[in-house]
Amino acid sequence: MTILYNKVTIIGLGLIGASIALATRRAGVAGHITGCDSGDNIADEIASLDLVDSFVADAGDAVNDADLVIMAVPVGALGALSAAIIPKMKPGAVLTDTGSTKRSVMRDVAPNIAPHIHWLPSHPIAGTERSGPSAGHATLFDERYWIILPLDVPTDVVDHFASYIEALGSISERMEPDYHDKVLALTSHLPHLIAYTIVGTAVDLEGQLKNDVIRFSASGFRDFTRIAASDPVMWRDVFLNNDEAVLEMLQRFSEDLSFLQRAIRWQEGDKLEELFTRTREIRRSIIDAGQS
Amino acid sequence: MTILYNKVTIIGLGLIGASIALATRRAGVAGHITGCDSGDNIADEIASLDLVDSFVADAGDAVNDADLVIMAVPVGALGALSAAIIPKMKPGAVLTDTGSTKRSVMRDVAPNIAPHIHWLPSHPIAGTERSGPSAGHATLFDERYWIILPLDVPTDVVDHFASYIEALGSISERMEPDYHDKVLALTSHLPHLIAYTIVGTAVDLEGQLKNDVIRFSASGFRDFTRIAASDPVMWRDVFLNNDEAVLEMLQRFSEDLSFLQRAIRWQEGDKLEELFTRTREIRRSIIDAGQS
Repeated sequence: MTILYNKVTIIGLGLIGASIALATRRAGVAGHITGCDSGDNIADEIASLDLVDSFVADAGDAVNDADLVIMAVPVGALGALSAAIIPKMKPGAVLTDTGSTKRSVMRDVAPNIAPHIHWLPSHPIAGTERSGPSAGHATLFDERYWIILPLDVPTDVVDHFASYIEALGSISERMEPDYHDKVLALTSHLPHLIAYTIVGTAVDLEGQLKNDVIRFSASGFRDFTRIAASDPVMWRDVFLNNDEAVLEMLQRFSEDLSFLQRAIRWQEGDKLEELFTRTREIRRSIIDAGQS
Repeated sequence: MTILYNKVTIIGLGLIGASIALATRRAGVAGHITGCDSGDNIADEIASLDLVDSFVADAGDAVNDADLVIMAVPVGALGALSAAIIPKMKPGAVLTDTGSTKRSVMRDVAPNIAPHIHWLPSHPIAGTERSGPSAGHATLFDERYWIILPLDVPTDVVDHFASYIEALGSISERMEPDYHDKVLALTSHLPHLIAYTIVGTAVDLEGQLKNDVIRFSASGFRDFTRIAASDPVMWRDVFLNNDEAVLEMLQRFSEDLSFLQRAIRWQEGDKLEELFTRTREIRRSIIDAGQS
């Protein structure tokens, strides 16, 4: 493979950051990969996992001379982090992030942007319920969408970055911040909120019933517990930062749920069956789209 | 293996019935397996799948001389079916069903029970979103719970049936109808209702947004579409027949969801993070219980 960036610096080596490091190495598209993470005693773990070519504890030092800087931290931390590193970045370097809420990234990072760098927010739509450096996997992005927000970055710089994320296995896609947040509110944020809620409802049950819910989880509940095991801080930040779109989709969801609740109470089987038949079609569309 | 029942008759050869046929054959515990299904033109499909030793279209004829009769049909159909077959069953034979709502089974089947048979309701906690005879699989019940409601059946008859379902790969468990319906309301029925709802919310979105929800489904939504692709008639009957427990659990869920909604609106991150941390523990319990 061709080297696309001489030096890639990844700040935050959780599930996403560690996976980017491993996928970059697999693709052979970076001359050098530097990792940075502020977690307690994390340097030894990073070293033992052999994720990066060099580990630098200080973010300002880590971005020194980097051609691409990837901020893979919870969205709530992007404002302060970008303020700290942008002055240390070299002219012409590209700065991106992997945050799930793009309107808030625009709001928090924009004030810190300096004209000597290219700011290109992005979002890889991939993940698992596991978190931390050891959860990283080189194949995480294979055949998954990775959304780029081109803003006013020159086309050749955007195209070059798109080549990089495609070399990591992903399908690149361009989108506007508002639309991104709306799509993600329904495809990702609301499902997580609901999974957290129902698992929370189970947590609050009395002893024996709670134990039996765990024992008999294979009947549907189990899928929700997987989603609800996702990283708490990352998801706290997602809901705080995409509150508008999430609350709008939640309102629609609540109305639809009330409709079904009423149908159950009044024994209106035809309404239930009609909806359950329509929802099947969506599954077929997803299978047809190769995302199943 | 020892023959546990000379003749097993399975009525309804959908996902569950077909899987019971295949698991029974794999276990080698039945002398003869008879299948029965009232679906249009289904006899040819059953024959081509080689699910049973003999196919009999009429349910009354199918139970003739059977030692074990398994009704694997939607719960709404159990009343009429049991009324039709019980008078044709031989003395001492065991009648069971695979319905997901046991209070309604008690209500609908009890009036038809005659003293010459043993009525032993049961419920295998296993399934996939696929349906129909071709969805059947011999391993469907492996290491999954199969609940028996012993009622007033003699212990040796119950134990014998338990040996049969264990030979099919399952873990047998005994439970009372009310408690069963409460556990299943939370572990299975409510998750399905919620998945149907959120996928329904997506179905109603305007064109482009709906298409993009499908394209970017990998971010969480996809898991819900799998659940919401389950058999519409079976699930209509589940909600109509476990309405009381489902509505009770739905009430708890709605309260908990309102709590999170309010926390998002008022930017109370600590409340979100606290819950998201607690829900992680349930996942660990499920992994420890070997049901992940």
